[in-house]
Amino acid sequence: MRPFMRQLVAMTAIPLARSKTTTAAPSLLKVSDTLHERRRFTDGEVAAYVGVSGDRNPVHMDDAFARDVGGFEHGRVVHGMLVASLFPALIAAHFPGAVYARQTLKFVAPVYVGEEVLVQVEALSIRATATKYMVRFATKCFTGDGVSSLAIDGEAMAVLPSLHLRDNS
Amino acid sequence: MRPFMRQLVAMTAIPLARSKTTTAAPSLLKVSDTLHERRRFTDGEVAAYVGVSGDRNPVHMDDAFARDVGGFEHGRVVHGMLVASLFPALIAAHFPGAVYARQTLKFVAPVYVGEEVLVQVEALSIRATATKYMVRFATKCFTGDGVSSLAIDGEAMAVLPSLHLRDNS
Repeated sequence: MRPFMRQLVAMTAIPLARSKTTTAAPSLLKVSDTLHERRRFTDGEVAAYVGVSGDRNPVHMDDAFARDVGGFEHGRVVHGMLVASLFPALIAAHFPGAVYARQTLKFVAPVYVGEEVLVQVEALSIRATATKYMVRFATKCFTGDGVSSLAIDGEAMAVLPSLHLRDNS
Repeated sequence: MRPFMRQLVAMTAIPLARSKTTTAAPSLLKVSDTLHERRRFTDGEVAAYVGVSGDRNPVHMDDAFARDVGGFEHGRVVHGMLVASLFPALIAAHFPGAVYARQTLKFVAPVYVGEEVLVQVEALSIRATATKYMVRFATKCFTGDGVSSLAIDGEAMAVLPSLHLRDNS
């Protein structure tokens, strides 16, 4: 995980707002451009997600169960798919009309309710079709402020209507 | 996609309740056991998910935009990651304390707001560790009542505290 940690150290040197930011200010997305965002999920948001998804797994709702059965030492964890929803959300915030084609997700470490995460997507390849752009992104989520650790790792493929970056910072 | 459609035809012969059902009534999960559930996402649920995930992509909120920019002929589509949340929800409903380790998702076709889906998880392999079970599932989502079509295809790896199936039918 050393490469990720180096990358994160580099990123935290950038003055990060809570809103979406870009590491540079390009008008057109290019390979190696990175978007990132900080976020935390509150009890109320996890409860709202339970209602919508129907996922009532007690590891998300019951501290003692999360510790004893789930093995999560700090109690309730955020649904992995809810944390992962930040990847398409971040892409769509910069590219409205983006359509998700694929996503792989490896849930490496838990994200606890109330814990801040840093989500990051990096353009790995861009392929133009007749009317759209197929962009492959590395999608990563980190927890922790100082010594950060990888919580979710994966890749996504999205179809973008344009490479024009909408600046949401 | 022929194998999926055959499988679905076989499944629709089973009297399906709206709640989770199993294709057999085993007490312990075994390879090839399948769990499934029918569900649809309302406008209100999609709006609640927009609030929690922050994913305000107009393909989920604006019929004209979804058609014209997203290319979705019937308008607004459900967030792919929201539909995919049904896979861990279905697994956790039968195996409380299940922990997600991995998920791959291929978004093959759109799911429109209000459209019924059939989600299905099938145990592909089971590996016992000292205290838990690593289970690999095929995860599929279909749309349509008569001629059904695959909307999401993928696989998940979940860590189950037990193979005992909790019957939610």
